[in-house]
Amino acid sequence: MKNINIGVIGCGFMGRTHSNAFGKVSQFFDLPYRPVLKTICARNADRARAFATQWGYESAETDWRRLVASPEIDLIDIASPNDTHAEIAVAAAQAGKMVLCEKPLGRTPAESQAMVDAVESAGVANMVWYNYRRVPAVMLAKQLIDEGKLGKIFHYRSVFLQDWTISSDLPQGGEGLWRLDASVAGSGVTGDLLAHNIDTAMWLNGAMYEVTAMTETFIKSRKHNLTGKQEPVLIDDACAFLARFENGSLATFEASRYARGHKALYTLEINGENASIIWDLQDLHRLQYFDHRDEGRLRGWRSIHVTDGDQPYMKHWWVPGLQIGYEHTFIHQVADFLTGLGEHHNASPTFREAMRTDNVTAAVLQSAASRSWEKVAAC
Amino acid sequence: MKNINIGVIGCGFMGRTHSNAFGKVSQFFDLPYRPVLKTICARNADRARAFATQWGYESAETDWRRLVASPEIDLIDIASPNDTHAEIAVAAAQAGKMVLCEKPLGRTPAESQAMVDAVESAGVANMVWYNYRRVPAVMLAKQLIDEGKLGKIFHYRSVFLQDWTISSDLPQGGEGLWRLDASVAGSGVTGDLLAHNIDTAMWLNGAMYEVTAMTETFIKSRKHNLTGKQEPVLIDDACAFLARFENGSLATFEASRYARGHKALYTLEINGENASIIWDLQDLHRLQYFDHRDEGRLRGWRSIHVTDGDQPYMKHWWVPGLQIGYEHTFIHQVADFLTGLGEHHNASPTFREAMRTDNVTAAVLQSAASRSWEKVAAC
Amino acid sequence: MKNINIGVIGCGFMGRTHSNAFGKVSQFFDLPYRPVLKTICARNADRARAFATQWGYESAETDWRRLVASPEIDLIDIASPNDTHAEIAVAAAQAGKMVLCEKPLGRTPAESQAMVDAVESAGVANMVWYNYRRVPAVMLAKQLIDEGKLGKIFHYRSVFLQDWTISSDLPQGGEGLWRLDASVAGSGVTGDLLAHNIDTAMWLNGAMYEVTAMTETFIKSRKHNLTGKQEPVLIDDACAFLARFENGSLATFEASRYARGHKALYTLEINGENASIIWDLQDLHRLQYFDHRDEGRLRGWRSIHVTDGDQPYMKHWWVPGLQIGYEHTFIHQVADFLTGLGEHHNASPTFREAMRTDNVTAAVLQSAASRSWEKVAAC
Amino acid sequence: MKNINIGVIGCGFMGRTHSNAFGKVSQFFDLPYRPVLKTICARNADRARAFATQWGYESAETDWRRLVASPEIDLIDIASPNDTHAEIAVAAAQAGKMVLCEKPLGRTPAESQAMVDAVESAGVANMVWYNYRRVPAVMLAKQLIDEGKLGKIFHYRSVFLQDWTISSDLPQGGEGLWRLDASVAGSGVTGDLLAHNIDTAMWLNGAMYEVTAMTETFIKSRKHNLTGKQEPVLIDDACAFLARFENGSLATFEASRYARGHKALYTLEINGENASIIWDLQDLHRLQYFDHRDEGRLRGWRSIHVTDGDQPYMKHWWVPGLQIGYEHTFIHQVADFLTGLGEHHNASPTFREAMRTDNVTAAVLQSAASRSWEKVAAC
Repeated sequence: MKNINIGVIGCGFMGRTHSNAFGKVSQFFDLPYRPVLKTICARNADRARAFATQWGYESAETDWRRLVASPEIDLIDIASPNDTHAEIAVAAAQAGKMVLCEKPLGRTPAESQAMVDAVESAGVANMVWYNYRRVPAVMLAKQLIDEGKLGKIFHYRSVFLQDWTISSDLPQGGEGLWRLDASVAGSGVTGDLLAHNIDTAMWLNGAMYEVTAMTETFIKSRKHNLTGKQEPVLIDDACAFLARFENGSLATFEASRYARGHKALYTLEINGENASIIWDLQDLHRLQYFDHRDEGRLRGWRSIHVTDGDQPYMKHWWVPGLQIGYEHTFIHQVADFLTGLGEHHNASPTFREAMRTDNVTAAVLQSAASRSWEKVAAC
Repeated sequence: MKNINIGVIGCGFMGRTHSNAFGKVSQFFDLPYRPVLKTICARNADRARAFATQWGYESAETDWRRLVASPEIDLIDIASPNDTHAEIAVAAAQAGKMVLCEKPLGRTPAESQAMVDAVESAGVANMVWYNYRRVPAVMLAKQLIDEGKLGKIFHYRSVFLQDWTISSDLPQGGEGLWRLDASVAGSGVTGDLLAHNIDTAMWLNGAMYEVTAMTETFIKSRKHNLTGKQEPVLIDDACAFLARFENGSLATFEASRYARGHKALYTLEINGENASIIWDLQDLHRLQYFDHRDEGRLRGWRSIHVTDGDQPYMKHWWVPGLQIGYEHTFIHQVADFLTGLGEHHNASPTFREAMRTDNVTAAVLQSAASRSWEKVAAC
Repeated sequence: MKNINIGVIGCGFMGRTHSNAFGKVSQFFDLPYRPVLKTICARNADRARAFATQWGYESAETDWRRLVASPEIDLIDIASPNDTHAEIAVAAAQAGKMVLCEKPLGRTPAESQAMVDAVESAGVANMVWYNYRRVPAVMLAKQLIDEGKLGKIFHYRSVFLQDWTISSDLPQGGEGLWRLDASVAGSGVTGDLLAHNIDTAMWLNGAMYEVTAMTETFIKSRKHNLTGKQEPVLIDDACAFLARFENGSLATFEASRYARGHKALYTLEINGENASIIWDLQDLHRLQYFDHRDEGRLRGWRSIHVTDGDQPYMKHWWVPGLQIGYEHTFIHQVADFLTGLGEHHNASPTFREAMRTDNVTAAVLQSAASRSWEKVAAC
Repeated sequence: MKNINIGVIGCGFMGRTHSNAFGKVSQFFDLPYRPVLKTICARNADRARAFATQWGYESAETDWRRLVASPEIDLIDIASPNDTHAEIAVAAAQAGKMVLCEKPLGRTPAESQAMVDAVESAGVANMVWYNYRRVPAVMLAKQLIDEGKLGKIFHYRSVFLQDWTISSDLPQGGEGLWRLDASVAGSGVTGDLLAHNIDTAMWLNGAMYEVTAMTETFIKSRKHNLTGKQEPVLIDDACAFLARFENGSLATFEASRYARGHKALYTLEINGENASIIWDLQDLHRLQYFDHRDEGRLRGWRSIHVTDGDQPYMKHWWVPGLQIGYEHTFIHQVADFLTGLGEHHNASPTFREAMRTDNVTAAVLQSAASRSWEKVAAC
């Protein structure tokens, strides 16, 4: 087992999930590589040092450029806000590092394209953290679809509903709230939430080629944490769109941060000629499955508790019936990345694959502005 | 199609469900006989007349003995309180009438035995209204068990939970509250609720032969509506028991009127070697079904929405997906009774079959008193 | 209590639900009028006579014009296919009859307008059978919204999913399958299913003013039962649309007959600032309710089993915990109609109100064709 | 923050959950002590070394006596089979070590008593791993009960259902299957599963004082892995019992490894005068809560998704809506233990508290043998 020295940039929410994943993966998976938590990088030196101690990093750093330049580092992992993704990723690729990046790739297709170009020119391993693909129940859905169990697909529908920004007292911008600041985040729910729905959808159901969308910003101005002033809210609070997939299926997508009662209701449903599936992040271990080939009077939606050893990833954990959680999706993604590395291929989604999602979100935002159907750019 | 003239005794809750069943059955089922709502009998003449008008009875009567003696009546249906069952049933049988009786049969095994003897000596058609057997999902469960789909049975568990008597302000006795008056009802939840659980259990899983039980009366005295005085509460508010069935399976049963949050949570679960089922009255159209023979990674509890034409009784109603309700179980029971009549056999449960349930409830109450395992009397 | 003589046209699925409603309502509701099942009208004389016997009609008729002209009839109820609605309704109104009509009103806004004009000119009582408003749980939702419990509304979403037309062997047209024949039905799922979603939505959430839609016909030709030939399928098999309501909320709607696993999954969700609700026809007694004003750590979706006497319509039925079904929504609608009649107002939805729904479905179909946002015509 | 040197005995299933807990706790909780994974002890030297490498232990050991004697070790954690608990715990306490022990404490009350005496004589910190208390939803239930939100308690019911031993081909004894070997495990489902139900029940609802039970061994003999011969099965495959609590409530308990369809269905329900709760291990983040004080028509069971920062333990993890899993209960238990240590008190359950559970399981097994109600020994 060879060591891989990891440098992680960002010690917010995603810095924690990634650090945890790198730290745990070797205890649960037999892998050709072992990640070593070498350096954490954050702007604030005290915070970086404390984070290093807590998570067992060997050192802390405040300048990502020094980290990227360090010969000790094999892999740069970008867990910082969206407005930093492109610059860091391009530099890291140019420095010959493997590059992992939080989703979405860039704030715009142009940023994303530059990132794809950089990793592909450099020929470095790369991956984007669309972690929800690695929920065991979602991976089981992928297996079933790939095996053809659903038959011809007619419908795909997916939502991502939250309710955390309903209060007009909530400010925008700064630590923990940069997702409400369009200049940092790029967009609102479209890039933050729908990107997940779209990534999973295209992974499961192939490419979508056209969309028509609407967006809304319910609260028009909020205090900005960095300026201290009431400023216009420029992100989308909610977005819904219709789409057509290349396989002939129809789709509806919706995300909102104003859906009272839902904290992280990411659901997907896919209806095929022979079978259908439903999944829901808030009860992530359950895959609902309906198979029309079951005996007529005994047909029903099966609530599959995906915790058995013959179900994806679960043999690495505990015993049937016992659950894992959100953080494990990141561990699985690292495991898949390192497995891929051992077999000389990139784990999915690569930067190029993730850029397809950015092209869809761009078309969605464009459609909301143009009030027309928009084609999704090829990738 | 021949007419059958019906005389119903009692115009309370059960008088309504029975009248509705007799009145509706011919619109939804093709049957060899058509019930005619001939006479309603209730002690209060005004109430009887109003009920007759409302439900379309040809006449009203206040004396059940006159009804039983009437040559116009073919079938006596007993929907009056438990303390009247035995006397009326015996008289009706002796008068050569078909006799239907609300459950439980008698207040005691002795009363029940007299009733069984009477209908069997007279050779008259007879049936007891254990209506929950006729929920489509429960009948589907019966089919699956009879076909051997579950294999050897290991466990049966069943509860009937309500919460309507928690307040100590609730009086006992009289109109609508006779179920709290031991002299009228015979017992509390054991005869009122557990009788249903036991009837279904023995129908699905065969005879049980021994029980050990506990009962409790949480509120020791209540105002009595007939005397106006605070009087001891002599019924059981709650009862739980363990049982062993002749097929080697173990069972637990529990009923209470002090289970906050449940209005009529009648559930049953049966675990077999190959498959298991769960059913719940509060979502009565759903049968939960788990089949171990399903492909391993796709095993799960199926939520079968029992509304299709190939599922029991449902071809008589609307279209798939559309529900029926509580009252329909009585309609089904009349349909089965009349079908049986056309084929010269009694529909189940006959008085004799229902007496088995009374023997179990007697053993349960005896066990609660003796604090010992008690054998169930044979029937 | 005054009698109202009813003439029902059509003895298919809706003829049964309406006949049942007229026949049962007086047994469960105290009303100023009592419907009398006077005459059933159907093209086939044998079928009409058999239906009359089964349901207790005094007579059968084969020519709706004679029925409309009959001085004995007070109310004409149209339960025949969509292509007959306008002509019968206009004639009945002109003859001074009260007119009830199955939904949708007409096949086109022009037909609907003629129907509205006719009943309003004649000044006759009128109502359209959007029965799902009368599910107790849906009526409870209406109460909560009208009381302001939800606060400002952000989102509405609703689907109606079925799977009964997936097989290409299914023919179109004729008895039982006219809903697949565009010339008779007017449209596919848009008029048949989405009309329900839209009616409920506007009743609960006010008017919607613009839509963008897509439709699809998955199976392009089917054998036609009347011609015996393979013919193009001209109805929409699936339809999804985005909408904006006048109250500022965003909505998504979708219907399909190709959603494997769903027989009649009519769902609605509405998210307000303070509370949200979810309802689902396949478990029609349950209203899901989330109230943000609950204590923080105890917030959760409540599964309200709407069977109590203080919940809409339920005091007329059995006891808490015991369900009613699909057919009862029609009984409730008759009860509300007759109550309204006694108070000299029309029960909702009147023809005029129902025409608003037809205007939305017309805009939806227009948008699917134009691939643009379309305004909904005012009414 | 002070280090505590941990020596863990056993590297099976529980060795992994404990190692993970000691290793992760400092990354998620601010604690006065930091556990150091000093030495793993297992009989097989190769396995011990591999485990040490995988989990980051500084050393591996094959003789637990050497570990107990080591001056480097502060805390002995017993994660080995039940037949080793007493001997190791007594020795460790006598050596002055803190002692943590997997449940159940001993195989018999006599063993348990010796263990309690040892830790109390030595005055060493001690705790038993009844981890399910530390599920956030279960801890929330505890808070609600302690605050009196439920009012007087009427009922407690709890099951633990599995289906992994149904096949008669499954052998007993040896690695991974010692739970089927009575000489090692002490008992079957009673000590393995019901011990959890009983521990939680008495923690939430106070002491129970009498029980009546039945047990069953469905498959009478199995091949023994250590002898290679078919040998009698001496454990209980299933056990059900009735109980009475000192607070006047009635209870039912049941566990089985023959409940087809259930992998680890540990459920509990508690019904109080004012409110009730339900919890289920297979959907461990959800607490069902019914509060009678809610407005009448809006009463319903709330499905509380216990993932918010104001709910137990959750502020240490991710963001609302995102789940944790089974392994986290052990992390919480270590956190509570270390917090208690800093405050100079034992975290619950101590050996003494856990012995109360052993007294109940002993009374249950005694009752199954005697077929009588049995008193629970005081502790």
